[in-house]
Amino acid sequence: MNIPFSKDTVDGVLKRLDIADPSKATIRQMARIAEELETESGQPFIHLEIGSPGLPAQAVGVAAQKKALDAGVANKYPNIMGIQPLKESASRFIKAFVGIDVAPESCISTVGSMMGTFASFMMCCRVNPKKDTVLFINPGFSVQPLQVKILRYKVCDFDVYNYRGAKLKEKMEEILKGGNIAAIVYSNPNNPSWVCLTDEELSYIGELATKYDAIVMEDLAYLGMDFRKDLSHPFEAPYQPTVARYTDNYMLMLSSSKIFSYAGERQAVVAISDKLFHRHYDTLAEEFGIGEFGNAFVYVILYALSSGVSHSGQYALSAMYDAACDGTLDFVTETSEYARRTKIMKEIFVRNGFHIVYDKDLDENVSDGFFFTIGRKGYTGDALVAELLRYGISAISLSTTGSRQEGIRACSSVMTDAQFPVLDERLALFNSNN
Amino acid sequence: MNIPFSKDTVDGVLKRLDIADPSKATIRQMARIAEELETESGQPFIHLEIGSPGLPAQAVGVAAQKKALDAGVANKYPNIMGIQPLKESASRFIKAFVGIDVAPESCISTVGSMMGTFASFMMCCRVNPKKDTVLFINPGFSVQPLQVKILRYKVCDFDVYNYRGAKLKEKMEEILKGGNIAAIVYSNPNNPSWVCLTDEELSYIGELATKYDAIVMEDLAYLGMDFRKDLSHPFEAPYQPTVARYTDNYMLMLSSSKIFSYAGERQAVVAISDKLFHRHYDTLAEEFGIGEFGNAFVYVILYALSSGVSHSGQYALSAMYDAACDGTLDFVTETSEYARRTKIMKEIFVRNGFHIVYDKDLDENVSDGFFFTIGRKGYTGDALVAELLRYGISAISLSTTGSRQEGIRACSSVMTDAQFPVLDERLALFNSNN
Repeated sequence: MNIPFSKDTVDGVLKRLDIADPSKATIRQMARIAEELETESGQPFIHLEIGSPGLPAQAVGVAAQKKALDAGVANKYPNIMGIQPLKESASRFIKAFVGIDVAPESCISTVGSMMGTFASFMMCCRVNPKKDTVLFINPGFSVQPLQVKILRYKVCDFDVYNYRGAKLKEKMEEILKGGNIAAIVYSNPNNPSWVCLTDEELSYIGELATKYDAIVMEDLAYLGMDFRKDLSHPFEAPYQPTVARYTDNYMLMLSSSKIFSYAGERQAVVAISDKLFHRHYDTLAEEFGIGEFGNAFVYVILYALSSGVSHSGQYALSAMYDAACDGTLDFVTETSEYARRTKIMKEIFVRNGFHIVYDKDLDENVSDGFFFTIGRKGYTGDALVAELLRYGISAISLSTTGSRQEGIRACSSVMTDAQFPVLDERLALFNSNN
Repeated sequence: MNIPFSKDTVDGVLKRLDIADPSKATIRQMARIAEELETESGQPFIHLEIGSPGLPAQAVGVAAQKKALDAGVANKYPNIMGIQPLKESASRFIKAFVGIDVAPESCISTVGSMMGTFASFMMCCRVNPKKDTVLFINPGFSVQPLQVKILRYKVCDFDVYNYRGAKLKEKMEEILKGGNIAAIVYSNPNNPSWVCLTDEELSYIGELATKYDAIVMEDLAYLGMDFRKDLSHPFEAPYQPTVARYTDNYMLMLSSSKIFSYAGERQAVVAISDKLFHRHYDTLAEEFGIGEFGNAFVYVILYALSSGVSHSGQYALSAMYDAACDGTLDFVTETSEYARRTKIMKEIFVRNGFHIVYDKDLDENVSDGFFFTIGRKGYTGDALVAELLRYGISAISLSTTGSRQEGIRACSSVMTDAQFPVLDERLALFNSNN
């Protein structure tokens, strides 16, 4: 069997799209390359680059949103703090699945976690003029460092691969000692590696954040999706691990995009620790006349960014939180569909001579989940992305995620069962050619 | 008849809310003061401070949004550029009611005009390192200079009251000569004064923007609401006046909040002139790897701010634009309800010894509309706000809008016909006491 796409065909598409190097392509550009090759050849691609929900939006959310529209919310500016029902259900949801207490007041509605992190960077880098740098525990979501860059704050980072357990503490303290770190950012489970920081590691991060007065921005976009444990029972341990158990300096980013497959309506909540919410900063009082962290976040930053979040969509999110807490919407079991697909895909990759790059949480195998990482001996991640394109498989290089490891990020979200044999066939061909 | 609220009562509420001076209160704080006084006394206030839609959301929008939710858009990230149907209907709407050509590509979806202006400030102040200052033709919407302040760019402004006609040209050129102006901002019709710049004045602004390479951000939140002319017929003159006829350096802010009473869903479009959209800036290419103004605006700034706009809401806005273009949704005639109320209210104020502050567009009386301005001999605007509180009337001082005139901003949007006699009675009492 021939390689499905000739070098000339791929090069022609890259040239037409003005993309010099596919390994430097953004997710969006990679999707475009794959689409062009599909159109040109009539052969469908295996899309591993896309991180969109592959499940329908939760029906309880859609119903609540339509009901709110019928009730006439579309002409009313939403409360910038978030509508009260959402604030209350968010607080309840956090108690039910994260196992911590955050008051409704401190649960703030944002236009997706994208706005959540953008606005949080603006706050964290503004409260203390000496702290102008954001520390990323990488790998991560590439748009977050872009946000920091746009805001012209500074970035520093390291790859967590070599710094697990006690080494993480050492590495972080070495950096935090500099006194310039305003915020510490990571996702847990991790996009792209699906590494899940352990409670021991989270305790180091929390304690150091307190010691050096940095704010932890914990991205919980994939809350509950460490499927090695059963995190599906509201108000029952085990809970989603969180740094919030170890420090008061935290902001949790709770996106609805993946847990409720509600990406389209741009709904999220930022949960600020009650203590941080009410903390007074002279710098904020001086600049904006509002000294409290939480109030400045809402009435200055979020007000100025969008003057609130889709009113009907907030009712959707509130209803989904409530259904999850009531046990009528089991989002953990529903999203475990991604893990089922990932398990099959990993097996296909490994059987054809590939390996999992981020394979362990200390001595335990990482969970199957939404994303996973794949490497191939003899290939850099960049070279692997380019070569897989010829086999009709699109992915992004780990080098675009702040990782120092060689490999690709793959996502199982849009894979169908019918595509598994196709993936297997293409990887077998790759294997026989390598 | 006694003054409805004693000085002690008002002072007590102000103290409780920690507001030293009601004339410095934000719109939101003023609403809060009024609510507290209502609760304490059981007497309803006349709310002139609120600028929310007083009409229901356009039904065609609500229906389209619900249909989109039924079709399953809630799980799909919206295109960051804006969904294609919205881009096309926005372009058509601009042709129909503004009478100019902007390609669908250059019509960009934003989370309300609030995000539209925030993102535009970030662009305008970034393309040329020498241009770091935003020029406001005041009075205006107070959150826009706040946005500039948050972004740490510079602000300069003047009050248009003394600079109409040829004087406007002179004044602007004096400022633009400095070479530091990145953007020129005003709303037309004007919030709060309902001044409408004439075509002559807009031509000065446009020509100077071209001459000194500044970008005009024209806020058309109240598009079509100069009710002295009939702007209600799609694709027929007269059209909404615009600077776009006089320069290629423009970004039009098209909010759906007031024209379609759709404030709750945070839907707007920024229409960039096609020439500016495609203009290449080395500064952008260097910083972000994307040199074209329009693409950097979308793929860097808007992507990083919220990763798009409520997917279902975009279908609502698209449907409303189309209905307006088809002549089945006459938003101009519907919003003229605000002008009807304003006409009655102005008459009541004037009959009781008050006057209109911004009264003329050159030699013509300003239109009745959504907002109007009121002064009283012997009172500063700040003092008038404080005194009217005691008569159960809440408004904001013109001093908070960048105006140098003495008076208040009043809005007719939430007034009911039943409240007119109450307003009359309270103002008569004020008049007899002054």
